[in-house]
Amino acid sequence: MSIKPIVYENGVCRMIDQRLLPSQEVWIDYDDYQGVAEAIRSMVVRGAPAIGVAAAFGAAFAARDIDAADFETFECRFADCCAVLGATRPTAVNLFWALERMQRVARENRTLPLVALKQRLLDEALDIAAEDERINRAMGQHGQVLFPERGTILTHCNAGALATGGYGTALGVIRAAVEAGKKIDVIADETRPFWQGARLTAWELAQDGIPVTLICDNMAGYLMQQGKINAVIVGADRISANGDVANKIGTYSVAVLAREHGIPFYVAAPLSTIDLTLTDGSQIPIEERDRREVTHCGGLQLAPEGIQVYNPAFDVTPARLVTAIITERGVASGDYVQQLARLKAVSFSF
Amino acid sequence: MSIKPIVYENGVCRMIDQRLLPSQEVWIDYDDYQGVAEAIRSMVVRGAPAIGVAAAFGAAFAARDIDAADFETFECRFADCCAVLGATRPTAVNLFWALERMQRVARENRTLPLVALKQRLLDEALDIAAEDERINRAMGQHGQVLFPERGTILTHCNAGALATGGYGTALGVIRAAVEAGKKIDVIADETRPFWQGARLTAWELAQDGIPVTLICDNMAGYLMQQGKINAVIVGADRISANGDVANKIGTYSVAVLAREHGIPFYVAAPLSTIDLTLTDGSQIPIEERDRREVTHCGGLQLAPEGIQVYNPAFDVTPARLVTAIITERGVASGDYVQQLARLKAVSFSF
Repeated sequence: MSIKPIVYENGVCRMIDQRLLPSQEVWIDYDDYQGVAEAIRSMVVRGAPAIGVAAAFGAAFAARDIDAADFETFECRFADCCAVLGATRPTAVNLFWALERMQRVARENRTLPLVALKQRLLDEALDIAAEDERINRAMGQHGQVLFPERGTILTHCNAGALATGGYGTALGVIRAAVEAGKKIDVIADETRPFWQGARLTAWELAQDGIPVTLICDNMAGYLMQQGKINAVIVGADRISANGDVANKIGTYSVAVLAREHGIPFYVAAPLSTIDLTLTDGSQIPIEERDRREVTHCGGLQLAPEGIQVYNPAFDVTPARLVTAIITERGVASGDYVQQLARLKAVSFSF
Repeated sequence: MSIKPIVYENGVCRMIDQRLLPSQEVWIDYDDYQGVAEAIRSMVVRGAPAIGVAAAFGAAFAARDIDAADFETFECRFADCCAVLGATRPTAVNLFWALERMQRVARENRTLPLVALKQRLLDEALDIAAEDERINRAMGQHGQVLFPERGTILTHCNAGALATGGYGTALGVIRAAVEAGKKIDVIADETRPFWQGARLTAWELAQDGIPVTLICDNMAGYLMQQGKINAVIVGADRISANGDVANKIGTYSVAVLAREHGIPFYVAAPLSTIDLTLTDGSQIPIEERDRREVTHCGGLQLAPEGIQVYNPAFDVTPARLVTAIITERGVASGDYVQQLARLKAVSFSF
């Protein structure tokens, strides 16, 4: 049973503080949208689908707390709150997708009494959370057939249960392969500067008893050169219409290395991660984060004072390096423009 | 004036503790070979040429302290001490090169009284140290012409003054380019797991006023993709006869990425780093280091308890990815088998 990083109960959203894992398992309660926004910004919660789920609860809390006499006033204030939530992180499109969905549901239910509308929005957030885990399990089924019966799979960052409503995208495919009886060893890139691989992927796979070996990001090429990696699978923060994939910084390097060694490079992401409004990856905004993530580790100063630092949090892997994109609706490969549009167009509900 | 990491005075070798930089500048005195061996093993001193210099002083100290009545007894005990020094780290060939040179000098001077022989060996160690800086300056002259008048150069690990007798190999070429009036910006990979880029390269370049920007290892590909890197230059721990280059883990990945983006990839190394006894890089032993380097940072535990870890300290970049090898005697490029053999064959002294 993989962990769920966001749990809702009685008007409160509990999130496991992913900054403290694996040393401490601390859960923080949030009951207003400002708190949820700060949780996203400060990376208490991270991972594109989990950010979407958190934002949905944040929007539901915002709706609950709006004191308005009519829908127009409500809608205007609700839009302001959603804008605050949307300003927390720029790259993962699931954030905007969840907020747009919540605002659309509000509009579609504008004739409801406000009390009922607020309940409807909370139900929608709960749906988004529950859906996400079902989506990941479907993705796991579609994706696991791509893995060999026995093999070693490299993953970068954490696209696991912790990054989603549960089960995981990339790690969901790994979980599904293991559940199907395949013998899978995982190599986890540590994923500087935020250590999502070392701290989160290693932790959640070890909890599930899936064999995992930790390496530094710069070791992946050497392992591939030695023939020790059979496939790569990662998640995504945003995928443009042509199949370019924005994901955690370092993903692009792994994709180039995989191609150099003839190793398949898979991306597992829900359809909500695919942004058909962008024709290619150059249009995806890339967040830059604080220099201190690079210069310090815990209290330890690694680099000299005053040094210049560049800290982009994501990069874009061009579609030509992506062997396949695994979604809850099926696998796209090759002509992504057509295939992603078709997958997105199918209305589908679990 | 770049730093010298190893300074000899009055029977004592002072080394700056590179594990504590940049936070603390602590110098440790060594006056016996066991201490020097431990300094190499524990990475107080690191970098292939600097390891060679340190080992030479260690051997001189060992010679000084041997109580023997004749050369045969001396030679036997000296060989034992050199074996201890040689067992500290397996990959950098400069270690073995320096120890062999010291033992050869002992044999060549076997007819000297032991007191004079011991002085001769100390002089040889001093020569090796002084030679190394001169070699690096020559390498700088040969190499800097390969750089553009204005450009951004990526380097991995620390192949600087701190890694040598002074001035540096890869960073020596950068220093020579700057001294020649070129406008050079440096991008330093942080170089996990030991942070030689963040801690050492950033520190020594900042001290010299050379603009340097620190990135995580996994960001190099993204910068190349954006056209922000004009050339890569690294040092080497061992180069086989065919031009395969063993260097700090992650170098191979950088070389693959450079090739993918059409960026020249240069290696700067003294001829002592070239090991003509090995036909190709697969014969170079690759050191694996302690798991704690990967799982912990300072006192902070990054990864869960008991996780499996793989920590190779070096990798091998095949010659086909190396644009040129810069030595003190000139630049090799293309047919490395012939060119490296010719450069090594020329007897040369500064």
